Amino acid sequence: MAPEMILVKLDHRSPEPVYAQIVQGIRRMVESDLLAVGTKLPATREMAAHLGVNRSTVFRAYQELFALGYLESRPGSYTTVRDKPKTTVCEPRRERGLLSWEQLSNPQSRTVIDIFRRHLPELDTEKHPDVLNLSPLEVDPRLFPVEEVRRCMNRVLVDEGSKALEYGEHAGYRPLRDYLAHRMQIHGISVSADEVLITNGSHQGLDLILRLLTRPGSKVVVESPTYGNFLPLLKYFQVEIVEIPLRDGGMDLKQLGKVLQKGKPALVYTIPNFQNPTGLTSPQAHREMLLRLCEKHRVPLVEDGFEEEMKYCGNVALPIKSMDKHNVVIYIGTFSKVLFPGMRIGWIAAQKECIERLTALKRFSDLSSSVLTQAVANTFCRDGHYDRHLRRMHRLYRKRMRVALSAMKQHMPDSIAWTKPEGGYTIWGSLEKSYINEREFKETLLKHRVMVAPGHYFFSQTHPRRHFRLSIATLNEEEIREGIKRLGKALRELERTGEAPA
Amino acid sequence: MAPEMILVKLDHRSPEPVYAQIVQGIRRMVESDLLAVGTKLPATREMAAHLGVNRSTVFRAYQELFALGYLESRPGSYTTVRDKPKTTVCEPRRERGLLSWEQLSNPQSRTVIDIFRRHLPELDTEKHPDVLNLSPLEVDPRLFPVEEVRRCMNRVLVDEGSKALEYGEHAGYRPLRDYLAHRMQIHGISVSADEVLITNGSHQGLDLILRLLTRPGSKVVVESPTYGNFLPLLKYFQVEIVEIPLRDGGMDLKQLGKVLQKGKPALVYTIPNFQNPTGLTSPQAHREMLLRLCEKHRVPLVEDGFEEEMKYCGNVALPIKSMDKHNVVIYIGTFSKVLFPGMRIGWIAAQKECIERLTALKRFSDLSSSVLTQAVANTFCRDGHYDRHLRRMHRLYRKRMRVALSAMKQHMPDSIAWTKPEGGYTIWGSLEKSYINEREFKETLLKHRVMVAPGHYFFSQTHPRRHFRLSIATLNEEEIREGIKRLGKALRELERTGEAPA
Repeated sequence: MAPEMILVKLDHRSPEPVYAQIVQGIRRMVESDLLAVGTKLPATREMAAHLGVNRSTVFRAYQELFALGYLESRPGSYTTVRDKPKTTVCEPRRERGLLSWEQLSNPQSRTVIDIFRRHLPELDTEKHPDVLNLSPLEVDPRLFPVEEVRRCMNRVLVDEGSKALEYGEHAGYRPLRDYLAHRMQIHGISVSADEVLITNGSHQGLDLILRLLTRPGSKVVVESPTYGNFLPLLKYFQVEIVEIPLRDGGMDLKQLGKVLQKGKPALVYTIPNFQNPTGLTSPQAHREMLLRLCEKHRVPLVEDGFEEEMKYCGNVALPIKSMDKHNVVIYIGTFSKVLFPGMRIGWIAAQKECIERLTALKRFSDLSSSVLTQAVANTFCRDGHYDRHLRRMHRLYRKRMRVALSAMKQHMPDSIAWTKPEGGYTIWGSLEKSYINEREFKETLLKHRVMVAPGHYFFSQTHPRRHFRLSIATLNEEEIREGIKRLGKALRELERTGEAPA
Repeated sequence: MAPEMILVKLDHRSPEPVYAQIVQGIRRMVESDLLAVGTKLPATREMAAHLGVNRSTVFRAYQELFALGYLESRPGSYTTVRDKPKTTVCEPRRERGLLSWEQLSNPQSRTVIDIFRRHLPELDTEKHPDVLNLSPLEVDPRLFPVEEVRRCMNRVLVDEGSKALEYGEHAGYRPLRDYLAHRMQIHGISVSADEVLITNGSHQGLDLILRLLTRPGSKVVVESPTYGNFLPLLKYFQVEIVEIPLRDGGMDLKQLGKVLQKGKPALVYTIPNFQNPTGLTSPQAHREMLLRLCEKHRVPLVEDGFEEEMKYCGNVALPIKSMDKHNVVIYIGTFSKVLFPGMRIGWIAAQKECIERLTALKRFSDLSSSVLTQAVANTFCRDGHYDRHLRRMHRLYRKRMRVALSAMKQHMPDSIAWTKPEGGYTIWGSLEKSYINEREFKETLLKHRVMVAPGHYFFSQTHPRRHFRLSIATLNEEEIREGIKRLGKALRELERTGEAPA
């Protein structure tokens, strides 16, 4: 058909992209039978000339129409109006179905779903482009070595071919397990590939460990505060969460000793380096004593080394796993806090028998992790990009942290205390008095165009609302400086207005 | 240093690759202090000339040495012997640690771990290159469109940049959810992107559904036989597995009716198309009645459409989800049985509220799926490669299935019955008499250089050992023909020797 027949009105001032306007136009014509089934659309070149747009714009529109089911799908020529049941006319369905999902959900799911719903939505950065967001613990994506990843991916697909797209070993891609075993040696951890299980991020590692070791009613000991996303998972597993406050950089060992004497927990969970959320690092002596305690009571110690690689200043202690002669430590690692979280690669290192058990659970919960992303990570690391990337990260975040700490000194009101981390991304701030509620806290900060994470995310029990976690992961030096300045103002305002009892 | 100093003895007839020999040689020299810390190795070019090997071989060896921690890691020049604690000397550790992982494991894990260990290892095809393996339900990797995947991946990383490497939405990459919602319309399923949750393969979908809907002791109704990997997962969740035999292509509805009257199960699980393992397709009328029954008793019906796209002959019925006016069906889809299982992409389509609940559980069990692989799948599909690939798969497997069924007719002993699937990959065979045990069955087949999956994997209760699943997924026509010929001989031998009571 001649392109003149296709009457697509384009509005170049519209916020809607031109290709989408073409899609809309043609879609309407098909739906109203102005374009009959089997009609051939003009070639992209003709259509582009006719509409006065770029050929790639027409191409994209045709692709979209094909994807939507309006056109026959032959790669390279999406040009025939498709013969198909009019699927765009959805059968009207009742919004409410026959089932009550609330009633059908088991109690532990309900708890988790409630938490999920209560979480105030994270800051929509597109809606608030002027807000400096110091809450996410997500590495600044501007630092991702995308080009290197792309090249590694090409290498993998050229060298390994279809191998990289097949099902993989349940325990993970062996060359990567090998690499990780060697890599951990740098931190003094001595394990072989058989003692490593690859997981979908470290969070799946936690899930598998709970699947193995807990029963409803088991005790699980955590630091207080601790990794916020772990708490709902613990609640799903219906365990009793025992929170032990931090003291001198690590969990209070006296209190832990008492807890252990009262009854054996399923596990003790610790984050010794740049603890999330506080940024604190536990001293070497503390690590040894913690390990001794767990050995003495024969309790598995889960060490979350989520930022092992982000030691960029000071003398940092060795991982507890490196001292683990009696195999009581289950170590968790991840790439997600330094590199590409979107690849979802974490790992567990533990005694072989423990790994075998966790592998069995993984095998029957999601079969295996993506071979492709594991193979890419492996190539990326072995080619030296990981080391280079880490050196760059250290250089940058050493500076960013310095800037952050000096800005804190300059802008925080006197009533605020905060931690001084030697690595990682987070600073933990504490107000003298508590703020009234999360919403008020957030609104005040938003008014000053800044955001941090309110502290109660990191506690299981209710507690005085007087903490916040500030993360320097996502912003650059200038943004951090300005963000902390705004935070100072916001906190001063909060202090004046919300003087609730501490 | 001069390359002559590096005395690496190469044995070109050794099965060990040359690069590995170089690695070994240099490694030994470092470990025995023949190469001191800080020593600079010769450039790859010099070294290659000296050893009389390709430069890329030396490059690979240096990379490996770097990865192993022997060399300083500067991309492009891995040339300085590293100053580091001698990590290769592992501290001797006791094989047995302080903990008994068996005692620490909860009972449901123990069950799953036992199953995992009892599984005889899958056929090691490298050890038995002459065996025709008709057991794996894994698409022939020779058919993967690797080059198209590679191009899509490049497009994604160029167009989306770091976006593709960040954490993604918990429910999955929105453009892919959009695409899948549209795609399912082709099969008459009418859902929006908000009614779709992306999972790590369909297996994680099953895991999440069980997490939501079951309690220990809940009943779960399955077809008998059914998807073998699902059974251990059900056991992990400590549910009562109610197996209902297949009759006329679908689960026996009379029996289901009785079960439903006795007490409400947590869910009914069905695979209506090319059922795994039988290859049977349930008739349209059966689907409607099954749905009515679940509606009447208000029980969620989990429809596993794992091979929805593999309808290549006959008239195949519409998915049950397409008739689901009252939102009782939870539909599961996956790419893994037609395309790239190694990407681990499956999905769930269900009522929005159900999806929201499952998303909450996913959020706290592994945060989200890989954005990168989802974005690649999205581009792959929208560019028309998926449709093209499917057309090719249909063409090929229609032929393969025809070849398989005619070879069955020719070579099976009279005592064997088998199904005649209209799509998918599996044929279900039944012997008149039972074989003695799995090991004997497998050994006899191996002797004839052929393998299929023994039937008891697909049952929860013990049952007469007289079934097997034959899969044509991995082999080509010639291999299938020859494989079935061998199978015929093996089964004849088995009949002669192992006449256990049926």
